[in-house]
Amino acid sequence: MRLLIALLAAAAVSAASSHKEGALRFLARPEGEDAYNRQLLELAAIPSVSALPENHGDLLAAAGWLQRRLEAAGLENVRILPTEGPRPVVYADYLHAPPGAPTALIYAHFDVQPAADTAPLWASPPFQPEVRSGRFWGRGVSDDKGSGVLPPIQALEAILKGGGGGGGSGGPPALPINVKLMLEGEEEVGSPHLEPFLAKYKDLLAADFVLSADGGQIAEDQPGLTLGLRGALALEVELITAQTDVHSGMAGGAIQNPARALAQLLSTMWHPGNSSVAIPGFYDRVRPITDADRDDIIAYNFDEEQQLLGPLGASEAFGEEGYTSLERLWHRPTLEVVGMGSGFQGEGVKTIVPHRAFAKLAARLVPDQTPNEIEALIEAHVAAHLPRACNASIKLLGFKAHPYSQPKDTMPNRAAAKVLTELMGNPPKYTRSGATIPALAAFQQHLAASTTVFAFGLPDSNLHAPNENFPLSMYRLARRAWVELLFELGQQAASGGQGGGDRSEL
Amino acid sequence: MRLLIALLAAAAVSAASSHKEGALRFLARPEGEDAYNRQLLELAAIPSVSALPENHGDLLAAAGWLQRRLEAAGLENVRILPTEGPRPVVYADYLHAPPGAPTALIYAHFDVQPAADTAPLWASPPFQPEVRSGRFWGRGVSDDKGSGVLPPIQALEAILKGGGGGGGSGGPPALPINVKLMLEGEEEVGSPHLEPFLAKYKDLLAADFVLSADGGQIAEDQPGLTLGLRGALALEVELITAQTDVHSGMAGGAIQNPARALAQLLSTMWHPGNSSVAIPGFYDRVRPITDADRDDIIAYNFDEEQQLLGPLGASEAFGEEGYTSLERLWHRPTLEVVGMGSGFQGEGVKTIVPHRAFAKLAARLVPDQTPNEIEALIEAHVAAHLPRACNASIKLLGFKAHPYSQPKDTMPNRAAAKVLTELMGNPPKYTRSGATIPALAAFQQHLAASTTVFAFGLPDSNLHAPNENFPLSMYRLARRAWVELLFELGQQAASGGQGGGDRSEL
Repeated sequence: MRLLIALLAAAAVSAASSHKEGALRFLARPEGEDAYNRQLLELAAIPSVSALPENHGDLLAAAGWLQRRLEAAGLENVRILPTEGPRPVVYADYLHAPPGAPTALIYAHFDVQPAADTAPLWASPPFQPEVRSGRFWGRGVSDDKGSGVLPPIQALEAILKGGGGGGGSGGPPALPINVKLMLEGEEEVGSPHLEPFLAKYKDLLAADFVLSADGGQIAEDQPGLTLGLRGALALEVELITAQTDVHSGMAGGAIQNPARALAQLLSTMWHPGNSSVAIPGFYDRVRPITDADRDDIIAYNFDEEQQLLGPLGASEAFGEEGYTSLERLWHRPTLEVVGMGSGFQGEGVKTIVPHRAFAKLAARLVPDQTPNEIEALIEAHVAAHLPRACNASIKLLGFKAHPYSQPKDTMPNRAAAKVLTELMGNPPKYTRSGATIPALAAFQQHLAASTTVFAFGLPDSNLHAPNENFPLSMYRLARRAWVELLFELGQQAASGGQGGGDRSEL
Repeated sequence: MRLLIALLAAAAVSAASSHKEGALRFLARPEGEDAYNRQLLELAAIPSVSALPENHGDLLAAAGWLQRRLEAAGLENVRILPTEGPRPVVYADYLHAPPGAPTALIYAHFDVQPAADTAPLWASPPFQPEVRSGRFWGRGVSDDKGSGVLPPIQALEAILKGGGGGGGSGGPPALPINVKLMLEGEEEVGSPHLEPFLAKYKDLLAADFVLSADGGQIAEDQPGLTLGLRGALALEVELITAQTDVHSGMAGGAIQNPARALAQLLSTMWHPGNSSVAIPGFYDRVRPITDADRDDIIAYNFDEEQQLLGPLGASEAFGEEGYTSLERLWHRPTLEVVGMGSGFQGEGVKTIVPHRAFAKLAARLVPDQTPNEIEALIEAHVAAHLPRACNASIKLLGFKAHPYSQPKDTMPNRAAAKVLTELMGNPPKYTRSGATIPALAAFQQHLAASTTVFAFGLPDSNLHAPNENFPLSMYRLARRAWVELLFELGQQAASGGQGGGDRSEL
């Protein structure tokens, strides 16, 4: 019996190997490169900006474009699914893998950051993408259309059309594992409708693990695998002291000044002269940094000047005492003022006492902090430190995400590490990110699935900034890597005897 | 000899009396009222907004209009004098009073506050002034064209043309005292070029006392005489931490946040939870409140709800512990945040760490504080409390005025009190103002002349606000009052034997 299983496995490996060769040949067709480039230029020309209501039609146009592309690629059940918000999700699947093969949910997002506000700073118009000096240039050519959305679709198409394989017995052509695709349309605004969407469609989306095509590598020759991301919470504190601004000569010194009151209130939120948060309980649930965490930090070999201060023109690192910059970014929470305003902000001066002041605060959270608990702590702190003669209101700003963390040694992480090492020439470093992909914690919570970040964004691609770009070489590498990964996942699952049922090490 | 002097004085009084009757008859001509109203409607139609460069041509147009009006009124040496800035001063004089009569400098300003920014809130267009319900409506109909600039010109014209009088011996018609007029064009922007102007023209402008037609009364039937105004100093503190904003996930917690640093810096400027200034030395030169000051405060009978909180919709008075609201406004300095800004201030949230934050601060000063000393104290405080990893810069915002104070019992104050009591039915209350007229301290400093505020603005005229207005009844009262005042000043100077030389009680 054992021998039979071993023989069958060997035969399967051999079939898979010829199947993969066919897929790679498909990718390498002479007409392929042009077609793949055209796809990105078409998709990136659609200004699918999730932040701006005037672009909601473009989000639908992008979803429609993807629906046609997914159908042309051979995916099944291609659907545009509504969320509770104005931005849909695009879903597709292909569930004809051999019995016992696991199911992966591939995640990416087709919405992009705004660009009109920075248009004068772009060398070419942000929504007229073009190829120049070996790179695509345009909003979304990296994040997430070029580095995330298209490569796995192109890989799936190549496997489905590349000949070889086949589900046997005249059935449809097979993939090495079962695949579901979920393309989100509101990642850039903090995925405000994702959780109810996952709750509603948890059966449709059920998977053994998630593969996120949103994220990035450290460099073109240095892969990284993301073990964690910080969560986030954004809220606005507003202080109102009167119905109207008033001449500062007429009332200055005799009524409350909301800008002064706000400065006094905010200053109680951190220890004096420091950035460590003074809100009681803020750090209570923060996990201590482990030796394994420190090993990853040492292996990462962070260059503070090159990777943090230099690009910003900042004079020195600044943060919680007793931690290095990378510890602060990967393992420590922070509370930042992201915006603040009151009174007259034009040239010169208008001598008024303002009647209103506000601050927008964004916390980045780490395990086991939760956005709800931190929100309650901030609210209690504001109530306890509210200056006199002020009305305060606090509102949530639609950005509320749990922190995410996973063990290093999962089967999909091992598969991804193997593929990346072979293709990029170096083994991956295990990283964390100070930023947030709300979906990852949400998948963990609603689908009980961990996420391997298999993504090809690069640090110098100007994400969220003018002149976003993405190298053609990385775009090519990404679709190749997705082919390799899908076969590697099939092989590891088969050889490890790990089907969909065993999530213990995912 | 004494008898002769007494007889001559009696004859002079009698001549003055018939002269005044002539002037009052001139004011009351049937065609007069229409002409006076037309003058204000014409002058207020010129948008002489000093704050806006695009209106500098209108300032010149207003100066030209005034030049013609002053010449038509019979004033002499009418000149448009340049300042070091783009806004001129209009000067005129009439110096043919009997020997020994004092010289008054009448001050007002022909520039106005901006109105375009609030145009939608006006019931009629701000620069198309009109008469409605017994009031003028339009920008500047009160401050300072209707309540200040035109009434003394109309009074001087009436005295010069009203018959009677005459300098005797075929000379030019006389005024009871010598008069110089100085109409400023930049009061509403803090008179930034006034001091060098006064230094340059101090001989031309030399006077025994100043009469300010800028200022106001308490109510139509309750006169007030202003004994003091607070000084002012406005400056901007800017903190810069990097060259650019950065994604708060990518750097939050590892670099300085200028908005947090600004809140921390600002919070050191006041005692916690209070509005008393914590900058060392800030109160060192503040004069204690005297019993006489408290008597004036009690006599003023301030209604905090009616006169301060109600119109603002503020819930409670708030200021330095141990002082009443009126003490705070009249006798205590204050340091206010008039504007503050950093990072993203639009709808929703952009999760960045900003690279820049600023606060505009305005101090209101009382004797014997000086703007230069307070500026130095603030600069030293910022340097001493500057958070780490910040570059700070401080710039002056073109508003720098000394506090002003004068004794109650001066000859011009007595003359003004007598006239106001007779015309308005009640004796004046002696007030101070928390606001600033930079010219008054500047006159004291450069011309060694105190100022009697003889002005007819009203608290409910919406100065600096939409729907500025001024009652026709007050406009009529003002020109009558100026005639009475000029004769009263002549009489008091003559009877008291007080000529131009004795400034001891001015």
